[in-house]
Amino acid sequence: MTDQRGSLSLSDIAREAGVSLTTASRALNNSYGVSAATRDKVLATARRLDYVVSPDAVRLASGSRTQRVALVVPHVERWFFGEMVNGIETVLAAANVDLLLYQVGGPEDRQDFFSRLPARRKVDAVVVVAFPVDRVEQERLELMGVGIVAAGGQSAAYPYVCIDDYQAGRMAVDHLVELGHRRIAMIAAHDPDQPGWPMRSGRSEGYVDALAAAGVAVDNSLIRDVDWGGLNAAAAMDDIFDAAQGDPPTAVFAHSDELALGAMRTLRRRGMRFPEDISIVGIDDHPVAALTDLTTVRQSVREQGEIAARLILDVLNPVADEGAPRAVTAPITLTVRASTGPVPNRTRPPAQATRDH
Amino acid sequence: MTDQRGSLSLSDIAREAGVSLTTASRALNNSYGVSAATRDKVLATARRLDYVVSPDAVRLASGSRTQRVALVVPHVERWFFGEMVNGIETVLAAANVDLLLYQVGGPEDRQDFFSRLPARRKVDAVVVVAFPVDRVEQERLELMGVGIVAAGGQSAAYPYVCIDDYQAGRMAVDHLVELGHRRIAMIAAHDPDQPGWPMRSGRSEGYVDALAAAGVAVDNSLIRDVDWGGLNAAAAMDDIFDAAQGDPPTAVFAHSDELALGAMRTLRRRGMRFPEDISIVGIDDHPVAALTDLTTVRQSVREQGEIAARLILDVLNPVADEGAPRAVTAPITLTVRASTGPVPNRTRPPAQATRDH
Repeated sequence: MTDQRGSLSLSDIAREAGVSLTTASRALNNSYGVSAATRDKVLATARRLDYVVSPDAVRLASGSRTQRVALVVPHVERWFFGEMVNGIETVLAAANVDLLLYQVGGPEDRQDFFSRLPARRKVDAVVVVAFPVDRVEQERLELMGVGIVAAGGQSAAYPYVCIDDYQAGRMAVDHLVELGHRRIAMIAAHDPDQPGWPMRSGRSEGYVDALAAAGVAVDNSLIRDVDWGGLNAAAAMDDIFDAAQGDPPTAVFAHSDELALGAMRTLRRRGMRFPEDISIVGIDDHPVAALTDLTTVRQSVREQGEIAARLILDVLNPVADEGAPRAVTAPITLTVRASTGPVPNRTRPPAQATRDH
Repeated sequence: MTDQRGSLSLSDIAREAGVSLTTASRALNNSYGVSAATRDKVLATARRLDYVVSPDAVRLASGSRTQRVALVVPHVERWFFGEMVNGIETVLAAANVDLLLYQVGGPEDRQDFFSRLPARRKVDAVVVVAFPVDRVEQERLELMGVGIVAAGGQSAAYPYVCIDDYQAGRMAVDHLVELGHRRIAMIAAHDPDQPGWPMRSGRSEGYVDALAAAGVAVDNSLIRDVDWGGLNAAAAMDDIFDAAQGDPPTAVFAHSDELALGAMRTLRRRGMRFPEDISIVGIDDHPVAALTDLTTVRQSVREQGEIAARLILDVLNPVADEGAPRAVTAPITLTVRASTGPVPNRTRPPAQATRDH
């Protein structure tokens, strides 16, 4: 019995009930476009295949709502996630929907979360922030009548909001290329807790294409991919300079402002000035970017949170003529500050005196 | 009836039931040390005086729990609050208690929150982070059987965890005094949304006493109190230098690292180097402090969140022999980095060339 329940998917329900996957999902979600007879048939099938699951689906079908949404974030203490939570909470609060917050770190946490949440039917929907949800988890939630929206990352399977990471990378590196830079280092980062999640790989593609458009070949000795964090970026920056002593970079593209701040510490400690000796650009417009005169590709994460919350409210109250999952791309803008400038004249070597700032 | 309910306090219940305030509170909270007969009498009185309120108290008394805690924060996107949420969520999740997150900004939000939360009896307890709760609000929650714990701020009325703000200020300024500084500026900040909340005033007292211990009179032209935020601190720093051109400060004490980062921008833009031309110290050990070589008084906010969560679990599951509300003071440590050094030799004027970093 346990095995059967563990492997049960929405497809199984649909096949057994003799309906399409879409119809099965809509029936179990009490969504539009399904007749009462069809819904009853699907619910009966779900009940037969998995008696633990079905009472909740029935409860949902009867219109019972918890008026609560779960927000799943990997790291609430980081700026990006805090801004996202801020935007989501603001919109949901105005709609009288309460927000349950879950920090879900690595794969184990994730498994625990997805196995426990629907069993207790605590929420009507889940917002996942920069976080992978696999097909089985997704179907399990849908079977429970729990909707999903993704924020801060792209998902083919459900509504999402994020920036165009490719354009963000392209915009940052195009800016450096326009200033004359050709030796451009890149510090990328991934979340070690989310293996396999293609976190912001578009930013690297933007870098590669911006260089290609300028006729510059990618030099892998100028690229590092680190576990997320400013101190790791600081170490990577040291590493790049140690490895490329003959022909060091004149500019750095960091995948986020927090990474850029780490790289800047290394560059400052090596006696370099911005932008006379080296230029650096990040992504985000973290509040500290303005305080450190860092050029960046600005995104409004709070606004993305607000959009995610509106997508969730749409999922909870679907409009009859609405179509497939919606994808919203939030705007980005280049914000030029004092950390970027023309490529330095290399006839004069960079200053060597150690400076603290 | 509305008027009566609006003005009803725990004291009214206690007086009508002929018991002490403590006994009334314990009875309504189903807490220790109250006989069944007394509890029944108090509940009956509460029911008679306010029929809307009492069913919830009865439900609590019968052992019904929501297994949810409300977390009330003014600004979840700021580092301090994010760390606090992180610590609280981690401990509550391990105890299978869910966390409802509410951002409560100004006084209006606050009134709305406290009037709506108990009416729907959504949670067993509330954690308020750096946020005032007045006597009427507190009694209203207690009457509902909703416990309160405060984090990041001191409260005489209920359990709390925070650092010793006086010691933090003292430690920061003593460090500067030991380095020979006597002209020490201070940038304090308050939250404009929380008027009347004595937010971190202890830090200013620590500054005053550290100066007094060194035989230095307070110079009000070196002190600014700003609305919270790095950019406001940057403006305040400019203001201090503009006002004190003849005898400028040789060091700056900022009430938090984010304020210090703002002040550092101004000082960098005025061509000053750390610590050769000026020293600066903050409070927090914000992750960016390590990336900007900022000396700071470190506090672990995450740990305070964990402690707050344990205090809440104690409130929900009181031990029979436990006494009055508990107060926990979290440790602080001076973390010396490159932003502080000996008082500069003023025979040589500070560099005037503008530098970006």
